[in-house]
Amino acid sequence: MAKMIHSMIRVTDEAASLDFYRRAFGLEIAEKLDFENFALIYLSNAETDFELELTVNKGQQEAYDLGNGYGHLAVSVADLDAEHARFLKEGLAPRDIVAFAPEGTLIGRFFFVKDPDGYEIEVLERSCRFA
Amino acid sequence: MAKMIHSMIRVTDEAASLDFYRRAFGLEIAEKLDFENFALIYLSNAETDFELELTVNKGQQEAYDLGNGYGHLAVSVADLDAEHARFLKEGLAPRDIVAFAPEGTLIGRFFFVKDPDGYEIEVLERSCRFA
Repeated sequence: MAKMIHSMIRVTDEAASLDFYRRAFGLEIAEKLDFENFALIYLSNAETDFELELTVNKGQQEAYDLGNGYGHLAVSVADLDAEHARFLKEGLAPRDIVAFAPEGTLIGRFFFVKDPDGYEIEVLERSCRFA
Repeated sequence: MAKMIHSMIRVTDEAASLDFYRRAFGLEIAEKLDFENFALIYLSNAETDFELELTVNKGQQEAYDLGNGYGHLAVSVADLDAEHARFLKEGLAPRDIVAFAPEGTLIGRFFFVKDPDGYEIEVLERSCRFA
């Protein structure tokens, strides 16, 4: 059996990413492996043992191409409205809360937010099936 | 606090993806939401409550552009050599096992494998820090 343990994204501005993930989701550095040409940073919080790995290729100036295949990382929160208000106050530019009801079926409530590189993160209300 | 609960990728061939993730990682359908134009499929196994979400846009023929920003999903296994041999036997085309030692520091052992759409998955040995 295999256990899903992390997801990796490449980021261009280490400080901006660390600031965003800390303020948005309480993610702190669990470990940083710093090499001459790159660094690997593992972010975690107390909610789960899944981690977000940031790869920093030193000297990378150009924005990464995010493509159209990978979608998002999803996180759940206890109180979506309170989190949305907090994101606004923190200047994290969350998009509006959506009640997701494709073809009439209510699935859940969420909002999306982008990290400094444009990666999409879905913030879901814990009461829904996905939380 | 926010809990990381799933990661979403768009796939072109639902049956091929389900077959791959089942055989490679024991991931089964936790829930499928089937709509007229698309389906959302949540895959899980007993190892963790993190899920992989597959989005199937019906009628999508063209391959998705995977870009160069998103890296991979990582899973850990108890016995890397046995899993690598099993992947070979199953025809899952794993790449060779690598002892990851950037700039001389041994970090861990792993191999990579691609899913049917080309998404990279890193399979790590459980004994390493990341497992």
